[in-house]
Amino acid sequence: MTLPQLDPVSLVDLQGPVRERLGRVEVEMRRMIEENFPLISEVNHHLLRMRGKMFRPTLALLADEATGGTGATAERFAAILELIHLATLVHDDSVDHSALRRGMPTINAVFSHQVSVIMGDFLYSRAVVELVRMGSLDALRVLARVTNEMTVGEMRQLLAHDPLTFTEEQYDLLIRAKTASLISGACEVGGLGAPAAEREALARFGEKLGMAFQIVDDLLDYTADARVTGKPTGLDLREHKVTLPLIHALPRFSAAERGQIDALMANPEPSEAQIAAVVQAVEEHGGLDYARDRASRIMAQADEELERLPPSPAREVLRASLGYVLERRR
Amino acid sequence: MTLPQLDPVSLVDLQGPVRERLGRVEVEMRRMIEENFPLISEVNHHLLRMRGKMFRPTLALLADEATGGTGATAERFAAILELIHLATLVHDDSVDHSALRRGMPTINAVFSHQVSVIMGDFLYSRAVVELVRMGSLDALRVLARVTNEMTVGEMRQLLAHDPLTFTEEQYDLLIRAKTASLISGACEVGGLGAPAAEREALARFGEKLGMAFQIVDDLLDYTADARVTGKPTGLDLREHKVTLPLIHALPRFSAAERGQIDALMANPEPSEAQIAAVVQAVEEHGGLDYARDRASRIMAQADEELERLPPSPAREVLRASLGYVLERRR
Repeated sequence: MTLPQLDPVSLVDLQGPVRERLGRVEVEMRRMIEENFPLISEVNHHLLRMRGKMFRPTLALLADEATGGTGATAERFAAILELIHLATLVHDDSVDHSALRRGMPTINAVFSHQVSVIMGDFLYSRAVVELVRMGSLDALRVLARVTNEMTVGEMRQLLAHDPLTFTEEQYDLLIRAKTASLISGACEVGGLGAPAAEREALARFGEKLGMAFQIVDDLLDYTADARVTGKPTGLDLREHKVTLPLIHALPRFSAAERGQIDALMANPEPSEAQIAAVVQAVEEHGGLDYARDRASRIMAQADEELERLPPSPAREVLRASLGYVLERRR
Repeated sequence: MTLPQLDPVSLVDLQGPVRERLGRVEVEMRRMIEENFPLISEVNHHLLRMRGKMFRPTLALLADEATGGTGATAERFAAILELIHLATLVHDDSVDHSALRRGMPTINAVFSHQVSVIMGDFLYSRAVVELVRMGSLDALRVLARVTNEMTVGEMRQLLAHDPLTFTEEQYDLLIRAKTASLISGACEVGGLGAPAAEREALARFGEKLGMAFQIVDDLLDYTADARVTGKPTGLDLREHKVTLPLIHALPRFSAAERGQIDALMANPEPSEAQIAAVVQAVEEHGGLDYARDRASRIMAQADEELERLPPSPAREVLRASLGYVLERRR
């Protein structure tokens, strides 16, 4: 197996070549969600502050540049992608009753559950309005499919709480729908003007990148320092979410360890000790190594897809985005 | 002021001329929301059972026939309209924490709040997927705008709980966005193949019809027999929703009556006696008569819009739909 040689890279590095364009994407986003209604403006203001890392717009702009570049069109697509991403975050936080997102209070925490549901709908329908205004049935086709896939992914997430029945295959379906689909959509829409072979390679690249991204995210939940990620370790276990490390390790658990995971899943508020014991068992039985290895293999596949694009500086920055996923792992 | 001569008419009467086509609309709906995922199938099954009255598909098909008829195209649009309607109902029930809809348990009651949020998103994104598949940017333009307007209407609804500040103008904006927009969209999309003048007349007809529909709905809350409507009288007041009858009557309230409405609004669970007292005050100060009169005037305007369509049996059934709104009033 050939693993790509990846240097750790920060998002700031990735965004360097498209920094100016990302500024225009933000201006577009503000324009798109502007609404002459006080409560909506207030929520928008809060959303734009928690806006986050603009990873999907960055990918769309890089894909655009790697396939010739379309200028303002790709910037508007990038803004729409981030609106869709925001819409899903707002609904996810509402579904999960999350209080914090990237260290900031969520819409459901600051406003209410009601406002969250409505604002998610507002953002998504506004994204569709903008796509229609651009008149691109191709972009609509990609992003409507992706958004629908994400809802199916969310539904799968609801069922990912039974470690005895949740398989690696189901996990793959979940992360493909929940995370990889929009990242794939970002890369594909960025390359919408390119020949079909390049566009499809970008879509596959994005899907692999997105899957690796989610596996690493789930790994971080087992390994990361809360001071770095802003999330406590073991949050998924606390919420009874079953991810790849546990799926892999579970068949190797001793009877005693099996008893521990059963008790954790039966406890609505698992203790720190319960979580720590399961984290340790998962690590001892190779769950973390296995997940790391899968992420690496998927990244190697993503890397290969880029060979189908003509050589360009932007293509190499897309390649470096795999290193960003790697960097997050540390 | 000329009021239209309207005979009371049942929905069954209205649907007679398009009964067979409505059957095909249902088949289309089933196809569109089919998903090979157990939980989604279960929710879909429940949704199709509470599917309701198919008022919007009926209007779309009648508008189609009144403008020449497009066959299968209008039936697919009609199915998409009902999907969008279902999506908004599912989210509305979740936002309102409603337990019953048309005498059946809501999705949030049977499944969970989480499932409601996700299923609303699923239905709406599936509707967009189908619109894209049909390749009609015109229909997408109408329905994306309408859906976005509905979310703004829902936001307005959240603020419609302070009788002292909620004006008739704001009420109009609310019902236009919340109810009239999709009914207008149904009529417009049904007539999408017609010349602009007819299509625009259908859009305006639908908007007026929808506004009258909501005013009558709000009136029913003050007047109706729970055994007929399936909803208890005064439900809006119980939930602190301010509607047209109260808006009109409030400035005419005595100090004692003002005290009563203030107490009701301050009480998280108003008593039957509190509700009955306010209903009586609203009636005595002409709130119900005023709302009835406004609904009639708006229906007269809707009636006039139909004159811009060529004479046809379908046009007269559209006219009769105004009588259906009237019938609901009784």
